[in-house]
Amino acid sequence: MDDKEVITPRSKDYSQWYLDVVRAADMAEVAEVVKGCMVIKPHGYAIWEKIQRELDDRFKATGHHNAYFPLLIPESFMRKEADHVEGFAPEVAVVTHAGGKKLEEPYVIRPTSETIIGYFFAKWIESWRDLPLKVNQWANVMRWEMRTRLFLRTGEFLWQEGHTAHDNHEEAKEEVMRMLDVYADFAENVMAMPVIKGQKSEHEKFAGAVSTFCIEAMMQDGKALQAGTSHDLGQNFGKAFDVTFQNKEGKLDYVWQTSWGVSTRLIGGLIMTHSDDNGLVLPPKLAPIQAVIIPVCQKEADKERVMAAANALFSELKGAGVAVKLDDRDYLRPGAKYYEWERKGVCLRIELGPKDLDKNQVVIKGRIAEKKEFIPRENALNVVLNMLADMQKELLSRAKAYRDANIVSDIADYKGLSDLFAKENKFVYANWCGSPACEAKIQEENKATIRCIPLIGSEPTGPCVCCGGEGKHRVYIAKSY
Amino acid sequence: MDDKEVITPRSKDYSQWYLDVVRAADMAEVAEVVKGCMVIKPHGYAIWEKIQRELDDRFKATGHHNAYFPLLIPESFMRKEADHVEGFAPEVAVVTHAGGKKLEEPYVIRPTSETIIGYFFAKWIESWRDLPLKVNQWANVMRWEMRTRLFLRTGEFLWQEGHTAHDNHEEAKEEVMRMLDVYADFAENVMAMPVIKGQKSEHEKFAGAVSTFCIEAMMQDGKALQAGTSHDLGQNFGKAFDVTFQNKEGKLDYVWQTSWGVSTRLIGGLIMTHSDDNGLVLPPKLAPIQAVIIPVCQKEADKERVMAAANALFSELKGAGVAVKLDDRDYLRPGAKYYEWERKGVCLRIELGPKDLDKNQVVIKGRIAEKKEFIPRENALNVVLNMLADMQKELLSRAKAYRDANIVSDIADYKGLSDLFAKENKFVYANWCGSPACEAKIQEENKATIRCIPLIGSEPTGPCVCCGGEGKHRVYIAKSY
Repeated sequence: MDDKEVITPRSKDYSQWYLDVVRAADMAEVAEVVKGCMVIKPHGYAIWEKIQRELDDRFKATGHHNAYFPLLIPESFMRKEADHVEGFAPEVAVVTHAGGKKLEEPYVIRPTSETIIGYFFAKWIESWRDLPLKVNQWANVMRWEMRTRLFLRTGEFLWQEGHTAHDNHEEAKEEVMRMLDVYADFAENVMAMPVIKGQKSEHEKFAGAVSTFCIEAMMQDGKALQAGTSHDLGQNFGKAFDVTFQNKEGKLDYVWQTSWGVSTRLIGGLIMTHSDDNGLVLPPKLAPIQAVIIPVCQKEADKERVMAAANALFSELKGAGVAVKLDDRDYLRPGAKYYEWERKGVCLRIELGPKDLDKNQVVIKGRIAEKKEFIPRENALNVVLNMLADMQKELLSRAKAYRDANIVSDIADYKGLSDLFAKENKFVYANWCGSPACEAKIQEENKATIRCIPLIGSEPTGPCVCCGGEGKHRVYIAKSY
Repeated sequence: MDDKEVITPRSKDYSQWYLDVVRAADMAEVAEVVKGCMVIKPHGYAIWEKIQRELDDRFKATGHHNAYFPLLIPESFMRKEADHVEGFAPEVAVVTHAGGKKLEEPYVIRPTSETIIGYFFAKWIESWRDLPLKVNQWANVMRWEMRTRLFLRTGEFLWQEGHTAHDNHEEAKEEVMRMLDVYADFAENVMAMPVIKGQKSEHEKFAGAVSTFCIEAMMQDGKALQAGTSHDLGQNFGKAFDVTFQNKEGKLDYVWQTSWGVSTRLIGGLIMTHSDDNGLVLPPKLAPIQAVIIPVCQKEADKERVMAAANALFSELKGAGVAVKLDDRDYLRPGAKYYEWERKGVCLRIELGPKDLDKNQVVIKGRIAEKKEFIPRENALNVVLNMLADMQKELLSRAKAYRDANIVSDIADYKGLSDLFAKENKFVYANWCGSPACEAKIQEENKATIRCIPLIGSEPTGPCVCCGGEGKHRVYIAKSY
C-alpha cells in the first residue's frame, strides 16, 4: 500500500488520524501557497452544501432573509467597538493597495461582519416598524491564525453569520436562544452529534458581546469542539454605529442586536464524532452518497445482465430519493471500490453479481455494520431505507453514549482535576466559584478551559473545584479544539 | 410623494430609471464606504438565490461538482500567464499585511481563479483516468473598477466560475459549447431574456483564452449586455502551471482547459430586460414572491372573515407550490401595499374584501396586465397558475419582439453606421473584414463594439461596413454595458 494511503489508527496518533481521514476521503487539502488556507474538494464541499441547505431552510422558517455585505471593511470601522477591535485586530488581513494605487484608508478582509452590518443597519432602520430586522449571510471570512488545521481552524473559512436588530432586549434574547436551539437541533438531528448548550464565561465570550451562548460537542479524543455560537450584542454595536430607532412612544433608542454563526468547522466536528480507523463515517442526512452499487462481474459473458440489474436497482433507489451512485468503472476491481467508498464514508454499499442474480438477492454492507447481509431483491429498497434511518439513529446514540461515558462528575478537588487532565481528555463537570482567577489558573495549568455554563444543570453542588470557595455554577471543563 | 420614492421614466433618463428601480424594489445599494462595492439586500439576494439554484441544478446535471478554492492568490501566480496578467493586474486589490505583519509575498484577492485552480489541478491530475475534471465554484471576486453601477459592474461581485480539464482539445471545445448552451437555455427559459450566442473577437476575448464565447442580450435602451462567457483556454494555463497528464499511450501532455462564468450582473440584465416605469418586473421562475394576497377591509367587523378567507387562499396557493405572501400589515392602506409590491416586481396581486367574499370571487391584477380580473373563488388557483405560466412566456416573447425590432440589418456603409450610433442605440448586424483596425475604428469613433460573431448567421453578405474590404463575418455591433 502506498504510504499516502495509510490511515493512522486513532489509538496511535489521533491528530494524524484526523488528517489521514480528510485526505483518504478526499475532502480538503492544505493550500500551502496561501498561508493557513485550504481547498475544499468536491467530496468535502458536497457535505457543506448539505449542511447549508438544512440550516438555510431552518433560518428561513424562523423568519430570516439572506443578504450580502461587502468583503472589505474600512479599517476605522473595526476600532469603533472597543472590545471588538481588541479581539479581532491582531488577526486581520489588510488590503493596502488596489487598482495600482495605495489606498487612502486600508481595508480589512472581514473576520466577521458586525461592524459593516452595523453601519448599514443604521441607514436602514428608522422606526420600530423596521424591526425586527433579521438577515443572514453565507460568506467567506478570514482570520490570520498561527496554528491551522483543516476545517477546524483555517485562515479563510466559509460560514453563515446571522445578524438581527430588535426594539427591546427581551426579544433579542429570545432570538439568541431560538438560534442556539436551531443549531442544537441541527447538530443532534442532522449531524447526529450530541451537544451541550450553555453560556460562555466573560473571558470566553465574543469580542463585543454582552453574552455568548454556544453548543459544545465532545470529539472521540475527549476534547471539546465549540460547534456554534449565538451572541447577545446588547446595544454595544448599536451605540458604536449609531443604530437608532424611534420607538412606539416616539422616542429615539438604540437597537438591541444579536449575531450567530456556524462554519465549515462543523465538517471537522462531523469527522471527529463518527469516523473510524477505516475512514470517514457520515450520518445519512449529510452523506453526499448514501448508497453505492458495485457490480461484481468477472466474466465478460455476465456483464450485460449484471449491468442491467445494477441500472434497474439504481433507478429504483434514486426514484425513492436515495442519494445513490453506480460505480461502473471498469478499470478497478470490486475490492478496490469497496475500499475507496468505505474511506469516503458512503453509508452502505450494495454488491451485485451473477450469483446474486441467480439467487434473486443483493448483498448489502452497512458502513458501521460488522457483516454483509443477503437480502431478497424485492426487499432491497425497503432494507436500504431502513438501514439509512437506523444508521442515523445509531450514530447519535453511539455518540451520546460515548460522550456520557466520558463526562467525569465526581472530581472532588483541584488535585483531582490536574491529575485527570495530566493523563487524559474528558469533560469534567465540576463546580466553579465564577472568578476569572480560577478560570485562568485552570487554563494555564491544565490547558483546559471552562467550555460553558450549561443551560441545564448549572446549579452548584459543592465548592469551587479550583479554590474551594463557594461554588456559583456547575460547569464543563475540557481541553478543546 | 417623497423624492426618494420617484421612479424616473425610462424616456427621460434611462440610467436614472435603472438606479431608481433598484432602489424602489429595495434590491441593493451602493456601499459608499467600500469603494465601488454594493450591499445586496434581501429582495435582490433572493433573486440571486433562485438564479443559483436553477444554474446549480444544470451544472450538476452536466457532471460538475462544486468545490472551494482560496480567496487569496500569490501575486506571482498572476504573472505566470502573460496575457492573463496584462488583463487583470491593473484591477486587483492587494493584501500586503496580515496578522500584524508585512507579508513576504503579497496576495491579490481573486479577480478570477484560473491561476490558483491551475496550481491545484497540477497536483491532482496524473493520468487520463483523472480526466475530465469538472469543478465549479460559487464565490465572491474583486476587480477594482473605476466606474461602477449596481449589479452591472461592481468592485466585488458574486459569481460562479466553472473550471474543467480534459485530455483532448475536442472534448474541451464540446464542454465550452455545452456550458454556453446551458447559459443560453437558462437566459431564455428562466430569465425570459433572449440572447445571441456568439464568439468574441480576438480583441475582446478573455485574457489568457484561446477563444471566448458569449451570450449577448439587448437591454431596453438598445445597448448590449454580455450576460455570460465560456472560454476555451487551450493549453495556456496547463503550460503556465505545468498541468500535465499521462495519456492512454503513456506519454505526458498538457491538459486542455475551459472556464465559464455568470455573475450577479445577470440581475442587472433581468431588470433592464423586463422592468417598466412602475418598477421591477420579474419572470415568475425567478420571482421571490409570485403572488401577494392583500386583504381589503375597512370595517373592523369584516376583519375576521376576510382574514380567514385570505389565510385559506394563502394555504391553497402555497400548497400548490406558488411563492405566495399574505400582506397582513395593519398600519398600511391597501393602496400603499399595491404600490409597494408593484415596484418590487411581484407577478400578481390578489385583492380580497368583504364584497368579494359575498360574490364568492377574488380580484387578480397581473403585474404586466392592464386591468384587474374578477375570478370565481373556486378558479383562483388555476387562474393564478395559468397567469404565472403565461407571464413567463409573455415576457420572453415581448423581449424577443423588442430585440428583433431593434436589430438593424441594412446598414450599407460606415457613414450609415456612424449616423445611426450618433443618434440611437441599436444592434447593427453588419459585415466585418475581420481586421483589428476596423474593429478599433468602430469602437473609437462610435463607442460601439463588435459584440460577437454569432454562431448562427455569421456568413458575410457583403463588404466590410467599415473599410469596404471583403467581408469575413457578419457580426453584431452595439454600444454595451
